Amino acid sequence: MTKRDRGIGIVETQCYTFAYPPDELELESGGKLGPVTLAYETYGKPNTDKSNAILILHALTGDAHAAGIHEADREPGWWDNMIGPGKAFDTNKYFIICSNVLGGCKGSTGPSSLNPETGRPYGLNFPVITIKDMVNAQRQLIGYLGINKLLSVAGGSMGGMQALQWVVSYPEITASVISVATTANHSPQQIAFNEVGRQAIMADPNWNDGDYYGKDLPAKGLGVARMVGHITYMSDVSMSEKFGRRFKDTKQPFKFSPEFEVEGYLQYRGDNFIKRFDPNSYLYITKAIDYFDLTNGKGLHELLKGTKSRFLIIAFKSDWLYPAYQSQEIARACKLAGVEAIYCELNSTYGHDAFLVEIEEQSHLVKHFLERTARDIR
Amino acid sequence: MTKRDRGIGIVETQCYTFAYPPDELELESGGKLGPVTLAYETYGKPNTDKSNAILILHALTGDAHAAGIHEADREPGWWDNMIGPGKAFDTNKYFIICSNVLGGCKGSTGPSSLNPETGRPYGLNFPVITIKDMVNAQRQLIGYLGINKLLSVAGGSMGGMQALQWVVSYPEITASVISVATTANHSPQQIAFNEVGRQAIMADPNWNDGDYYGKDLPAKGLGVARMVGHITYMSDVSMSEKFGRRFKDTKQPFKFSPEFEVEGYLQYRGDNFIKRFDPNSYLYITKAIDYFDLTNGKGLHELLKGTKSRFLIIAFKSDWLYPAYQSQEIARACKLAGVEAIYCELNSTYGHDAFLVEIEEQSHLVKHFLERTARDIR
Repeated sequence: MTKRDRGIGIVETQCYTFAYPPDELELESGGKLGPVTLAYETYGKPNTDKSNAILILHALTGDAHAAGIHEADREPGWWDNMIGPGKAFDTNKYFIICSNVLGGCKGSTGPSSLNPETGRPYGLNFPVITIKDMVNAQRQLIGYLGINKLLSVAGGSMGGMQALQWVVSYPEITASVISVATTANHSPQQIAFNEVGRQAIMADPNWNDGDYYGKDLPAKGLGVARMVGHITYMSDVSMSEKFGRRFKDTKQPFKFSPEFEVEGYLQYRGDNFIKRFDPNSYLYITKAIDYFDLTNGKGLHELLKGTKSRFLIIAFKSDWLYPAYQSQEIARACKLAGVEAIYCELNSTYGHDAFLVEIEEQSHLVKHFLERTARDIR
Repeated sequence: MTKRDRGIGIVETQCYTFAYPPDELELESGGKLGPVTLAYETYGKPNTDKSNAILILHALTGDAHAAGIHEADREPGWWDNMIGPGKAFDTNKYFIICSNVLGGCKGSTGPSSLNPETGRPYGLNFPVITIKDMVNAQRQLIGYLGINKLLSVAGGSMGGMQALQWVVSYPEITASVISVATTANHSPQQIAFNEVGRQAIMADPNWNDGDYYGKDLPAKGLGVARMVGHITYMSDVSMSEKFGRRFKDTKQPFKFSPEFEVEGYLQYRGDNFIKRFDPNSYLYITKAIDYFDLTNGKGLHELLKGTKSRFLIIAFKSDWLYPAYQSQEIARACKLAGVEAIYCELNSTYGHDAFLVEIEEQSHLVKHFLERTARDIR
């Protein structure tokens, strides 16, 4: 049986628009935004009491297309190996929802959307958004879908931040949290890497203070940002295993074109990124990540005290972008708060990317965690 | 007694020009370069048999000004805390030499130097250079200074690579090697970080294929390159200790100007770099570093077999840019080759920067190593 045979087949992205004036979405910054559209996909079916819903949350450059394939591009969703019949998030049992984040560029309202006041893309007139704003928008979507309780909220990297924010913002409807390769607050090193990406984009003259829609795009700046990102998603070991010191083409001139395989790979990933991602979304979303500090300096255990939600916290040994100690801090806070938490540190050489590729062990953990949660809340 | 009292006072950079046509310097790439100027400084005095000379080798953005102060800017040299009377490299005992590398922009011949054939700066007409080429140029300088034997060659980071290349290229005149926070071959992750810097420079339209002298400089691109560099020079811990999640000015608008202290620091360092460094030199020198593979895939111990030089190898636990395992590989090769080697892994939270700031323990190790070497070769 091939992987595709076990998949959920053709899926379609849908849209939900809400927060029409004068009832706009109130933002953490104090501003308001509306109308707001969230692009989303669902897999599996809700059961009769709608108690089997799981919200999947994506990372920085992800989107609503978490599983299955689209008719047009036949490209499987970003967590297709985790979502489907018999998989970790088993679509025979659960109703899975995934939405593109507020601020994104894959169907949800973001800086590339039309500003209703001007009829032109928002650009830098888009308000600053936070992880909490993303979660508040998702809360509207969940209500629209008629879900009163989420069996779980789950995500890796920025998806994990949203999952943690969900349980803090809406503990009463979040039965469990699966937080993978993430942190409760962004460290200065993590901020610094994002800032390099932003400065690279803003250094590109085509960026033009965010007003580039319909003109030449700041492709080079976004490419450099993507290259930095990719380095942080891999590990020293995984790069050595994948590329070594091999040259991609020994006949190339001895100058500054990419010569090493690793250079060619990064340039390819950088060059292609402009085709699928809006540079302004990159600015806004990385900024939301950098602002993320779940507790604002207070003790996380204080915040979690009294929550009935249970936690599955997964980290990867070779992940140096979101090092295991940050997940350990979440687990420690759960224990201090008397909240049920399972902490697993998985061996992997894939670095931060492990949450997308180390499927076997993750599947095992997630499957059992969800089964136990579903049984216990009945 | 203040630090300055113990220093070596006012120093001056000098220049030596050699390799005049038709006797140009032969480069590893097959090309030739000449005339070649090396800027250098010396501290202390040669003893009667000139057996007390030590060559200090600088890192990527370093220069010949390793110690003392210049009349004009009163800025101490980059390793001033290690070089001087009574210090690790004791100028009461040793004759210290430091030269700006070939390809540099601080007085040595590099891409910003005038091409004698055109009367204009070389720019991208400068030939590709390697660590071996840098060392071969330094060999000329050492000969000019009348030194037949070096008591030691010492350097951190790229300086350590040159030190290792010295002992492999010229084992008969290199009595000892002090290699700090370095590697015998550049890993794909290390190449990748350099490539991000290069791509950031080349993405800047002012770069203009390297032909920007006398025009607007690619300051933004070089700034981004410097920002990436700085992140890799520090550690997760040192950044957390230095910046935390503090805002630099809470009254700033909630947008994309640097808000966190860490962002302000990186931007400051990035913005200022253009005042002291030539972007083309950054391209050429990082490329030389990336090409560095001392053994070209062969066993390092094979290469070291028979050498009489002794090694002091220092690494720092929190250095993730040049991780300790790379220094351990050098130490292992020495042991396998029957070469005398001391390996020390120092506790420090400063990351790669530790080689410039963790002075006390380093001084102790270097001082004793040099004393023993001086005694034993007598």
